[in-house]
Amino acid sequence: MSIITIIGSGMMGSAMARPAKDNGHEIRLVGTPLDNAIIEAVKAGKDHPTLKRSFNGIATAFYISELGEALNGTDVVLAGISSFGVDWFTENILQVLPKNVPVLSITKGMRLEANDSLQVFPHHFASKRPDLDFIAVGGPCISFELFDRRQTMVYYCGRNMAAVKKVKSVFETSYYHIIPSTDTVAVECSAALKNAYAMGVSLAVGLAEREKGVTDARGITGNSIPGAPDLNPVYNPQAALFAQSCLEMRRLVEMLGGNGDLVAGLPGAGDLYVTVFGGRTRRLGTLLGRGMNYSKVKEVLNGVTLEAVAIITRVAEFLRRASKAGKADLKKFPLMMQMDSILNKESPVALDWESFGEL
Amino acid sequence: MSIITIIGSGMMGSAMARPAKDNGHEIRLVGTPLDNAIIEAVKAGKDHPTLKRSFNGIATAFYISELGEALNGTDVVLAGISSFGVDWFTENILQVLPKNVPVLSITKGMRLEANDSLQVFPHHFASKRPDLDFIAVGGPCISFELFDRRQTMVYYCGRNMAAVKKVKSVFETSYYHIIPSTDTVAVECSAALKNAYAMGVSLAVGLAEREKGVTDARGITGNSIPGAPDLNPVYNPQAALFAQSCLEMRRLVEMLGGNGDLVAGLPGAGDLYVTVFGGRTRRLGTLLGRGMNYSKVKEVLNGVTLEAVAIITRVAEFLRRASKAGKADLKKFPLMMQMDSILNKESPVALDWESFGEL
Repeated sequence: MSIITIIGSGMMGSAMARPAKDNGHEIRLVGTPLDNAIIEAVKAGKDHPTLKRSFNGIATAFYISELGEALNGTDVVLAGISSFGVDWFTENILQVLPKNVPVLSITKGMRLEANDSLQVFPHHFASKRPDLDFIAVGGPCISFELFDRRQTMVYYCGRNMAAVKKVKSVFETSYYHIIPSTDTVAVECSAALKNAYAMGVSLAVGLAEREKGVTDARGITGNSIPGAPDLNPVYNPQAALFAQSCLEMRRLVEMLGGNGDLVAGLPGAGDLYVTVFGGRTRRLGTLLGRGMNYSKVKEVLNGVTLEAVAIITRVAEFLRRASKAGKADLKKFPLMMQMDSILNKESPVALDWESFGEL
Repeated sequence: MSIITIIGSGMMGSAMARPAKDNGHEIRLVGTPLDNAIIEAVKAGKDHPTLKRSFNGIATAFYISELGEALNGTDVVLAGISSFGVDWFTENILQVLPKNVPVLSITKGMRLEANDSLQVFPHHFASKRPDLDFIAVGGPCISFELFDRRQTMVYYCGRNMAAVKKVKSVFETSYYHIIPSTDTVAVECSAALKNAYAMGVSLAVGLAEREKGVTDARGITGNSIPGAPDLNPVYNPQAALFAQSCLEMRRLVEMLGGNGDLVAGLPGAGDLYVTVFGGRTRRLGTLLGRGMNYSKVKEVLNGVTLEAVAIITRVAEFLRRASKAGKADLKKFPLMMQMDSILNKESPVALDWESFGEL
């Protein structure tokens, strides 16, 4: 039996308790300063407020003020934070993590560095704690499906294959399948980009609805496959954008030194497939496609964190700088650049289809 | 203005009339011997019975007995037949097609030849009429969406790029985007395989429903995204199978000499994305996943032609023969071989997840 300390009690971090517990490990679930309501509920034996499942008998909950206790004797740390919590995690948590304990990171995103490079989070973390092994997760995984023991297949990746395999052995079960890899750039870059491109694919949903006169927020709820409930979905343009997304993800992964072939499997196409069908990014793209500008969409989705917006803004800026330096051709990323204009210049959604396709 | 003769008035062949007509061409729609009811309706000015749209002002309809008249002065022939009509087309139509007229083929499928090779249909047709240029279509395209002028992006491919571009110019519009290519093997192999693997992805839908007690045919209707209407869909296993499908499609395309990179774009991942969400193959996979054996599924779906079954049976047999000859490793195609067992040995759907993944 090992001790697993999960820091960050959002849906995905919390759900990872399930396979580890099924393998007989002790699970400690620590909330960030924003998670106090979740920790209070779990400590009281109530359902996890966002995952809407009980953690009784699965994990012991800790407030962030109890972090020291939660880290005492731990064997694996899971960094269960969103990209918006990276600075907090880097400044407050990284330095207090014990030595020789591998850190599994589920954070999706990339940083634009001062030298104009784009960096995946595991490499950022490692630059601050070079003594630790950071292992990142990529691939299609909806949190509550994992918690409910649905068949799930993902990548774990890191620079040290022995550490990757150690962490894999802690989490792998008969329903949670893990492919080990050392290509952190390909896996993490895909994991970040799929949020961006899920917005792109969803634009087609909203565009088709707009043609039928739907320009408001109807049908935009928390359920899967949101959309105007009285309309049949339209797939040809979604599929064309899905394919364009796969092309651009591949180009960016290869530009950053990763193996582009991985984009065609779980970390790219597979994860995009899952992300398109529900959640905030789908709602974002659908509303934009219906003709709402981004300021208005932010009001409608008020309070929802939009990782897609962060990653699109960052990648587009990276590409502009790289283009100026002669290191990138913006014509290879037309969908990314159009998404950036829609968000950051509030340009109307009028996709330039002729710019898409294999060149 | 050119004259376009469409032979076969199924949904896809018929829908291709729309972009060609929008470009100002004259369209002649010829039914096969099985299409008499469609031609009768269109001649009478009624809606096309399966596409459920009017062809008034778009195309002139012809019975197969009027083929000579329909071919008189034609500039482009469109072979609008399903894979089940290939022998009829080869034996009865190919030889009467005029010289120097390019033939656009929308038939998806592959032939297992006597020498144990797997051949795409355009190459089969060309072996019978080496004087003609055959151009094949691949990529995500639902027929009625094209007819309704939804944004659609596809590949046209053939050995002669000039002929490909000529046909492209006839059909390309502001909503129907065509990428020309000479890689017929990659495009057509993907187009055929996506039907097979759409069944594989759909198995996950049925498996998840079975866990909730759904073992009958409820919710299996003609609409998009069929499934038990009272259950939320489950995406993690679908996405894992989607990724595995992309991997196996790539391997087969490369084995047959095509460019595997195309599988990650429109002809593979893009077309699979569309095919998973509706139609007969989704219903087939869902029912099998729920635990119905194939004999029973055939009863439930009575009369529906299942291209997926034909292609799975043929590709699995091809792979077994290639494996015996030392030319293929069956472990690289675990999903294909499991699908073949489910259909042809009526094996229960118990997916071997450990066999999946990048090797």
